[in-house]
Order: sequence, then C-alpha cells, then structure tokens
Amino acid sequence: MQAAVHLCEVGPRDGLQAVSRTMPTADKTAWLKALHAAGLRHMEVASFVPARLLPQMADAAEVVAHALTLPGLKVQALAPNLKGVQAAAAAGAQVVSVPLSASEAHANANLRKTIAQAVEEFRHIVAWRNEMAPALQLEAGISVAFGCSMQGAVPEDDVIRLAHTLAQAGADVVGVADTTGMANPAQVRRMYRSLFAELGNADDEGRPGKTGGAHVHNTRGLGLANCLAAYDVGVRSFDASMAGLGGCPYAPGASGNVVTEDLVFMFEAMGLHTGINLDRLMAARAPLAAGLPGEPLYGMTPEAGVPKGFMPTTAMQGPST
Amino acid sequence: MQAAVHLCEVGPRDGLQAVSRTMPTADKTAWLKALHAAGLRHMEVASFVPARLLPQMADAAEVVAHALTLPGLKVQALAPNLKGVQAAAAAGAQVVSVPLSASEAHANANLRKTIAQAVEEFRHIVAWRNEMAPALQLEAGISVAFGCSMQGAVPEDDVIRLAHTLAQAGADVVGVADTTGMANPAQVRRMYRSLFAELGNADDEGRPGKTGGAHVHNTRGLGLANCLAAYDVGVRSFDASMAGLGGCPYAPGASGNVVTEDLVFMFEAMGLHTGINLDRLMAARAPLAAGLPGEPLYGMTPEAGVPKGFMPTTAMQGPST
Repeated sequence: MQAAVHLCEVGPRDGLQAVSRTMPTADKTAWLKALHAAGLRHMEVASFVPARLLPQMADAAEVVAHALTLPGLKVQALAPNLKGVQAAAAAGAQVVSVPLSASEAHANANLRKTIAQAVEEFRHIVAWRNEMAPALQLEAGISVAFGCSMQGAVPEDDVIRLAHTLAQAGADVVGVADTTGMANPAQVRRMYRSLFAELGNADDEGRPGKTGGAHVHNTRGLGLANCLAAYDVGVRSFDASMAGLGGCPYAPGASGNVVTEDLVFMFEAMGLHTGINLDRLMAARAPLAAGLPGEPLYGMTPEAGVPKGFMPTTAMQGPST
Repeated sequence: MQAAVHLCEVGPRDGLQAVSRTMPTADKTAWLKALHAAGLRHMEVASFVPARLLPQMADAAEVVAHALTLPGLKVQALAPNLKGVQAAAAAGAQVVSVPLSASEAHANANLRKTIAQAVEEFRHIVAWRNEMAPALQLEAGISVAFGCSMQGAVPEDDVIRLAHTLAQAGADVVGVADTTGMANPAQVRRMYRSLFAELGNADDEGRPGKTGGAHVHNTRGLGLANCLAAYDVGVRSFDASMAGLGGCPYAPGASGNVVTEDLVFMFEAMGLHTGINLDRLMAARAPLAAGLPGEPLYGMTPEAGVPKGFMPTTAMQGPST
C-alpha cells in the first residue's frame, strides 16, 4: 500500500539536542533500529555542529553510519554551515537540512548571522554541493516562519520571499518550521497555499515542486491541529519527534515537536496510510527511555493506548526488520 | 463584535464530577464568577444526580442559583432522568442536557438502561417539559458517539438514527460527544455533515436546525484537531473544560475534555472572535486551583504563555464584570 503521508522522525536530532544530557551512541543506534522496525523510512539523525557547542551530537558521523545500514532509510542530517554540510556529506548523509531564519533576531541568536549572510552561506553550500557532491540533497529550513519569540509576528511575505530566494539559489526543498509553536491552523493554510503557488509542492507526484514538509512544535497544544491544517491544503510530509522531544528555549516547560505517536495515530485513524505500525512505534519508546533514564517522555496516545476496535491501515503489514 | 464561535465551559460539571474530591461551593461560585468575567456566557454548571452517587454535585441547586446572578449567562445543567430534570428546572437552569448513549454497553454502564429505555425516559421528559416548563430548553447529548471503550467502534448510522429519534421526540438540540477521546478529524467531518443534512445546524442563523455543538475529549491529544475539523464543516459551538478537567474512567491518566484555554487560543489566533479574554481566562485558573489544591491543571497555552506579539480579537473589549 502506498503511503498517503510521509513522516520524518526528527527526534534523534531536534529532540536529543534539546535534552541536556547526552544519549550514548549505542542507545541512539538501538533507538534508530526500533524506529526503522516500526516503519519509519526517513529520519533526521544528527546535527553536524562543533561538539563544544552541542556535545549531544559529537557522535554524528557514527550515528549517520549506523543509519545507513538500515534498509531503505532516507538519512538526513542538519548542518548550519558549509563546514557542517561537508562533514555530513563525508559521513554519508543523503539529505542535509540547512537552517536559516525568517527573523533577524533569531538568525542572530541561532546562527550569529544576518539573514543575508545566512543566504550567502547557503549559496556557498550549493556551489560546493554542485561541484563536489551532486547527489546530495539540500533542504533549506526556514526557522520561526510562523512567529518568533524575539521579534514576535513574522510577516508571511518575508517567509515567501526568503523561500523564493533559497529555491532560486539551488535548494532542492525549502521547508518552513514553526520553531516556537506560534502557528495556528488558519496561518498554516495561508502559508502553504502561498508556498505552493510560489514554489510548488515537493510531494506533488505529477509536478513536483520545492516546498517541503511541515515542521511544527506543540508548544501551545496546536501541533496536531496545525498538521491537519497543512494536510488539508496538500502537505504530505511531516516532521515529528518521538515522545515530543525537542522544545524551544523560549518556552520553558512546554513540550517540543509534535509527537510522532500522536501524529501517526491521527493519520491512521483518519484512514491515511503512514506505513508506520503503531504497536512497534510504541515499542520504540523503550530504547529511547533506556538511553535517557528519567527524561520525561510525552505523548497522549501512548498514555491512553489506542482505542478498542482501532483499525490502523498499517496493521496488516508483514514483519519489517 | 459578534462572536464567530461560541464556547460552553463544562468544567464545573464534566470536570468537577471527574475529580474525586468535592470542591467547596464558595470556591465553585468564585470560579464561575471568574469564568464569567473572562467572557464566558454559556456554562454547564452542575449535574442533578443523587448526592450519594456524585457527592461533588450535591450543591447543584445552589450553584445554579449563583450562576443565575451572572449577567447574560446561559445556565445549563445535566440531568440523566426526569427527576433530575425536574430538580434542575426547579433550581432555575435554562438548559438541561440529558445524556444518552450510542452504544448499549455504555448505556447500561452509565445509565443502567437500554438505549430504548433511555429514549423512552427522554420522551417522558419532553412531555413533562411541554406541560410544566415550556421555556426550558432540552438538549439530548449522545455519549460515545465516536467510539465506545466497551463496544469499540460505533457505526455512524446508529448515531444518526438515534439523533433523528431524539429530535423527533422533541429535543431542542441534539449533541454528539466524543466521551472517550476516540474521534478523528475525518470522522468528525463525516459525522457533522451527516447530522447537518439530517437535523440542520442549531448555529445556522438563517435556518437554525437541531444539531448542537461539539463535545470532544483530548484523551489522545486530538481535541483541538477535532474541534478544527468540526469548525471546518460548520460547527460553531464547542464544549471545553478549563485546565482539561474531566476524563474518562476507561482511559486512566489521560486528560479529559479539550482545554478551554488552548481552544480559545487556537480560535483567537485564527482571528475567530470568541468573546473570551485570554488574560482573564488564565486568571480564572487561580480560583479553580484554590478550590482543588494539589489537583493537576492541564493546558499547554497556560504553560507556555501566549506568543509575543499575539493579537487576540477579544483584547479590545472593555472591562467585563
């Protein structure tokens, strides 16, 4: 059965880098294996940044190498600059996501660059990729696209203009992220309609464009509603994080990314095939918990269990390994 | 400004009856006053059931009497049978919601009746109302309409048939409830489209029908997504519970009703006027907490705070008292 929606598990990157302790490499690889066994075929597994800044990601190359042993897995990493992209490519990452910001305040805080400087860096990355690693897929990820904790509201026009610039600069895919959980469903629909009009939809099979999947945080509880809104207007790829790991330093105590388990439950309950087996997905929380003892794991569906009589579209799959 | 969506706060009934301790009457009335000051103009404030079954609701008549002093408040109570409806009417409730079940298993567990017996009881209630209390509005509330913890899936046809029967029997409004948090957005849209086709929409100003607002639980985290789905197809009234109080005995640990604070934030962020001031709504958590010390209060927006630069439609209102 063809998947109706595609999920990218970003917990190993977005989640683990938000947790202060460092998950041992062996636990990371056990977790990736369990996620893969549940049916996930796209994961952002590591961030290529200096280990002194993010010690949680010091084993990025090793984790990518392990991820590459999992059959059929699209292995994605994050890298904020050319040096990081080169390291990710050297490690074997098939997709590298490069973060930029829709607000100057966030660009400065997160990247120590102006937006213009970040775009310039992205052009260097594309030039290097074109010459040295033509098979490498480059995704430009626009952070705080739906609002910024420092700047406040972010005009949609700013996002669309930046997305257009990055697509023209050579990004294969341009994604927008609700980094701080400020998006609402009406805004999500407007944003994706505008992006699709400008860049097309990467998931449009007939005429693929460049707009990437949705990346939303659940900071104010709207994560699933925003994913539904995105789905309604044609988004078919979604980032999510097991147990809602992740988060935003500007919203203390708030949970992070939209919870993979809840998102899979929502889509499967709607009859939309995800290719992800919910029982095995729940089982993949165990290696995560083992690697981060005492870390709170979020998720409403794991807590309540699937409803009696629940008929997922992905129940009938044979065993996946 | 005309409200684009109408919220009914059900925490004082659905929430407090799910909490094992009893909130003192003075704390209940202080809480109702704070909710009213935030702009809520419709509340289900009590349940008229024998005090030996629900000691939390022993002061129902007193709470209704207080609620009637709050200007412009539509005062609703719940009552499972004729005796309860009579008591609610005597206390002055303007609307009484009568619960029925879409599954025999739940009807038996919750009401100790078959569905047919519950419908028969409802006919007696209507007959009494018509003769003795013609101004009393009667809402029939169909529990477990989206799935039952005991029966499992509930066929939509069963719900529509029961809704039709109850409307014919004389219900002013027929509401469907996702009592156990099993609904998904696709199902919600199908259900309301069918109900509107059969009964019309009570919130349709041009041609008001009998389908009531949405009552969903957040057991699996889909509460807001399901409300969004309902809104999309024309639902304009929503039950919600401050701090997510409520819950379902068949999903231990899971939170209860959709959280009023999060729902108001979602709608206001979408530019839909609720008439509810978020700051004052947040402030109404204090009297709730005071009346139920130590009880966990849920809600993502209260935890994270409203985003910087947030412009609610209901900010401009003058002081309400």
